[in-house]
Amino acid sequence: MLNHLPSEVKIIEVGPRDGLQNEKTVLDTQTKLEYIRLLSKTGLKTIEATSFVRADKIPQMGDAKALYEGVQSLSLDSSISTPCLVPNLKGLDLALECGVGEIAVFTATSDTFNMKNINASVDESLTRLAPVIDKAKSEGLKVRGYISTVFGCPYEGETSLENLFKVSHFLEKAGCYEISLGDTIGVGHPVLVKNVISELDREFDISLFAMHFHDTSGTALANILTSLEYGIKAFDSSSAGLGGCPYAKGATGNVATEDVINLLHSMGVSTGVDMELLTEASTYILSSLKKHSSSKFYNAYLGRKS
Amino acid sequence: MLNHLPSEVKIIEVGPRDGLQNEKTVLDTQTKLEYIRLLSKTGLKTIEATSFVRADKIPQMGDAKALYEGVQSLSLDSSISTPCLVPNLKGLDLALECGVGEIAVFTATSDTFNMKNINASVDESLTRLAPVIDKAKSEGLKVRGYISTVFGCPYEGETSLENLFKVSHFLEKAGCYEISLGDTIGVGHPVLVKNVISELDREFDISLFAMHFHDTSGTALANILTSLEYGIKAFDSSSAGLGGCPYAKGATGNVATEDVINLLHSMGVSTGVDMELLTEASTYILSSLKKHSSSKFYNAYLGRKS
Repeated sequence: MLNHLPSEVKIIEVGPRDGLQNEKTVLDTQTKLEYIRLLSKTGLKTIEATSFVRADKIPQMGDAKALYEGVQSLSLDSSISTPCLVPNLKGLDLALECGVGEIAVFTATSDTFNMKNINASVDESLTRLAPVIDKAKSEGLKVRGYISTVFGCPYEGETSLENLFKVSHFLEKAGCYEISLGDTIGVGHPVLVKNVISELDREFDISLFAMHFHDTSGTALANILTSLEYGIKAFDSSSAGLGGCPYAKGATGNVATEDVINLLHSMGVSTGVDMELLTEASTYILSSLKKHSSSKFYNAYLGRKS
Repeated sequence: MLNHLPSEVKIIEVGPRDGLQNEKTVLDTQTKLEYIRLLSKTGLKTIEATSFVRADKIPQMGDAKALYEGVQSLSLDSSISTPCLVPNLKGLDLALECGVGEIAVFTATSDTFNMKNINASVDESLTRLAPVIDKAKSEGLKVRGYISTVFGCPYEGETSLENLFKVSHFLEKAGCYEISLGDTIGVGHPVLVKNVISELDREFDISLFAMHFHDTSGTALANILTSLEYGIKAFDSSSAGLGGCPYAKGATGNVATEDVINLLHSMGVSTGVDMELLTEASTYILSSLKKHSSSKFYNAYLGRKS
């Protein structure tokens, strides 16, 4: 164990989209832009900016167009990618209008979860996604795929490896450059993570996958450690652990970027991210949201400074 | 990795002593006794009860005598051990008067930490401990040893493996049946944990050691996972994560028993502890302390029920 640590790992910062989307306090566009600007100074190379969804469905993302125009006016370094979530062709068209260079599409391995989330079964969701990915690719966009409920579903419990294979094959063939496997309710544990990756390893190049762990049960870093050992080199996380868990009141959602980066850096795995600058971005957005961080490392880091 | 998980692991519950000791709100003896009674119903077999220290030094432990008499009046199942911390001969004599059956003694690998904590260097601390352990053993008591700052010191930073070997050899020869290695400030990480255990494995039977991780950086479960892989089968933890970190304001101290047990149970490692009963004990003591839990799993568990 720990004989296969990579020298470098990619962090996909999802705070401005996945994080904020699960925060009740709706922020104005300028605040979100300043958060993205601060994040862009940290060394993070992928910062998920927003989601082109219906404003009545997710008010926090209601300003996607203005937000993305603001991101463009920041003139970020060309090495920084700012993908946007797109649920359907309408969302894609909006994203194209705004000059988005990378999109993310999403589905899940659980039919019940998908029905409640997007009113489509797993199979139907793939039928819907096909033209979205096709069009995005033909327009020259990079496409990333999200698969939710890979380690468990809030409605169905255990989820199907068969569906995971089906969806992964579909997304790969459709042209996604990376597939992010989501532990939507934070029930993944190291043995399950090992088993899922080992199964995928039989049919896929494992470098196709990123892991998206929620820290709802406190197991995210143990799961990341396990994933590293089995060849995963890309992880989604949100600064300060923004975004709660909609399935358990007061519980933690996305694993915090600070916790992930501290784990990696302490083991000698580089991420290119500056912890001090990252905590500054987190402090800014936490104060805008008037909330505390769920990140143990962030709290200790700030506590030691005070 | 994860090919060497044990079928069973021992949990040493340190909430009533190490946890409460670091809580500012001083509780009355009856409240602490009720907490211990609730913990004793969970399946936990080792519950650290109190510390025979000077009341002016640690007010929370000022009622050690009354507390332990209360523990005896609970008539706990004979399979449950309720060790007490003892800093010196005076503390030992008090413990003996109360009929304590097991004590714990403590030192550290850092001279600076020991000087500030007990006004003795590492070597001096061993000279002081020798007669305490001798007398305890001759009186038929079981003795457990704590070594603090094994993975880092708040004053010295990195600490010495040489001192760890010296102290471990001393405690083993003196007759400690178990030695608990403390990550006092929560800076341990999996690579360091692996290295420390691998070094110890060259000179000791590794089953002599328990791990005492603090979750200050959120890495405790990743460290426990690593420890399991390298043969450790005993872990200290405090229910609900009681006890903060005196070295970083607002930061987490002891890893929460709920988080540890959830990790273990989800991977099929048994502990004999009932999660529902454990959270009831935690809820009781949290409400007495008027504080929230630092345990991610506890918060999610309660959140899902509400």
